[in-house]
Amino acid sequence: MKNKRELFIGNVGIGGTHRVSIQSMTSTNTCDWEATLKQIHALEKEGCEIIRIAVPSNDALFSFAKIVKESPLPVVADIHFDASLALGSIDAGADAIRINPGNIGSKEKVKEILKAASNRHIPIRIGVNSGSIEKKYLSADLSMAEKMTASVLDKIKFFEENNFFDIKISLKSSNVTETVSAYRLMNDACDYPLHLGVTEAGTFFSGSIKSAIGIGSLLIDGIGNTIRVSLTDNPVEEIKVAKEILKVTGMRNEGIELISCPTCSRTSVDLIPMVKEAEKLLAALHPNKKITAAIMGCEVNGPGEAKEADIGLAFSQKHGFIFKKGIMIEKVEPSHAINRLVELIGQM
Amino acid sequence: MKNKRELFIGNVGIGGTHRVSIQSMTSTNTCDWEATLKQIHALEKEGCEIIRIAVPSNDALFSFAKIVKESPLPVVADIHFDASLALGSIDAGADAIRINPGNIGSKEKVKEILKAASNRHIPIRIGVNSGSIEKKYLSADLSMAEKMTASVLDKIKFFEENNFFDIKISLKSSNVTETVSAYRLMNDACDYPLHLGVTEAGTFFSGSIKSAIGIGSLLIDGIGNTIRVSLTDNPVEEIKVAKEILKVTGMRNEGIELISCPTCSRTSVDLIPMVKEAEKLLAALHPNKKITAAIMGCEVNGPGEAKEADIGLAFSQKHGFIFKKGIMIEKVEPSHAINRLVELIGQM
Repeated sequence: MKNKRELFIGNVGIGGTHRVSIQSMTSTNTCDWEATLKQIHALEKEGCEIIRIAVPSNDALFSFAKIVKESPLPVVADIHFDASLALGSIDAGADAIRINPGNIGSKEKVKEILKAASNRHIPIRIGVNSGSIEKKYLSADLSMAEKMTASVLDKIKFFEENNFFDIKISLKSSNVTETVSAYRLMNDACDYPLHLGVTEAGTFFSGSIKSAIGIGSLLIDGIGNTIRVSLTDNPVEEIKVAKEILKVTGMRNEGIELISCPTCSRTSVDLIPMVKEAEKLLAALHPNKKITAAIMGCEVNGPGEAKEADIGLAFSQKHGFIFKKGIMIEKVEPSHAINRLVELIGQM
Repeated sequence: MKNKRELFIGNVGIGGTHRVSIQSMTSTNTCDWEATLKQIHALEKEGCEIIRIAVPSNDALFSFAKIVKESPLPVVADIHFDASLALGSIDAGADAIRINPGNIGSKEKVKEILKAASNRHIPIRIGVNSGSIEKKYLSADLSMAEKMTASVLDKIKFFEENNFFDIKISLKSSNVTETVSAYRLMNDACDYPLHLGVTEAGTFFSGSIKSAIGIGSLLIDGIGNTIRVSLTDNPVEEIKVAKEILKVTGMRNEGIELISCPTCSRTSVDLIPMVKEAEKLLAALHPNKKITAAIMGCEVNGPGEAKEADIGLAFSQKHGFIFKKGIMIEKVEPSHAINRLVELIGQM
């Protein structure tokens, strides 16, 4: 993993040796500060660590100031087009701001924003999307990933020339291959922390898969410092997907990873409802370490996988066998097997 | 992309210049040939191209012979432990067999299988899972990915020494990072086509995410020739996830990719139900080319993304605007916008 600079959004560290954090964005009308705070609380409860809020107008800015004071999570103001809204958000107490310097107005305006953010010691995310490439690169003979990267590097240079280094980068495309290529290029090109996401990923089903591929393939190569899954759905769903991505890529050292086989002709127990039941019961447990639990339907890969897991349950034709750290510890009847497994995990 | 040898399972080409194919495995009791054929037909209807069936007993083998004759899809026999079942499946007309040579008995037995497969010109998948590593590598000072790769290379060598080259490889682990590492090593180490999958991936939700990361991150780097998503659920669900993975990684040149934004305070229309409605209506269309359709809630990334897509719909405060190949072609009322978009896509 490449070492990245460290920055803080409120009390959440990003880059350096900090773990990969989860963020989302409110979908409420920012002017409705009660609804927005309610959504932030729901997101926090699900595991969101940083919240971004669009500030598209002066009315929204007025409400934003109230939200920032009450929010249980550090708040990032999302600003487009209007530098005065960026300055207003910084004054209002934003823990960070996100701008696309290409659409915020003149260089002088950007300088004013950098100065204001510097004075309050808050970071800025430079966010470029494939839909908002610098004009001079649009017709260049470069791949989309190279165009996005070049656009961001230009902006970084300008920030650095103005002594601003508290920078986080995102380069999102709705094309997952382009997104991954752009982040790989950027990871090599600078040591600023990276905010990962696939933009406009789509509905819960297709957006989860697209985000999992885009974000997950970067994380397994050690690229990325904070993530946002983007879905056209309730943002609480984004957090569920984000947590799952961090879990299966080994980025979090707590929680239960449930491994289970797809069942086949060799399976003599009715495994699908058993695994669903286990998933439901295990969701109530919140271990502060990582536990891998396997539920396997037959004797082919069953014992092997069950042994490799911290705790495992494998079925033969008639019985269940529970393994712990590679050793068979109990023979159980299939009808009691799931409850017993969950009980043992609860004791771990 | 690394060039791989070409082989055929029935009429489906794998490796060479063939497109990445989708496979699944029946979860019915193979002895119940009617239920198994019913499941195969359901899988074919969803888009499955190759079907694998476990043959764990002589009774199953008897039924397997009937299934092979009736199956609309090429059939792979999945064999463990018993070489005579492998020979029987080959005789019964299997289009390919999958064995783990480490559990099938002596080298002489493997040779018999190679000879029988050779005579019928059918390929063999060598499938090694992290739970079934060769004993001699188990305690070696190697990563799990290296152990899996070394195990397979041993087996390949033996096959080659016996003049058998019609080989397909899989190296599955329930750990997605290990899986990706193993396939990357294997992709460099040989030119046999690769069957991608994350084994025992889990339930629909977590299994989809795990499979998307494992399979997707390999596909975007040009690794992989056929895929199987493994879920503890109805195998038809596996095909839906597999198709989505191939679509978003650009492996298929047909179908509609729906891009939509996560909505935020800037969105003034109720976008989530509109996008869900569009997803539902678009599922009925089966274009024989790839169409990217964008539905965007606001003026920030909206027009940019909508222009990049083949067809796009972006909303301002009061109106919808339809773009085709980058040019705004229609202004629509939000209430009619989705129907009009779907209508226009239907005409493409």
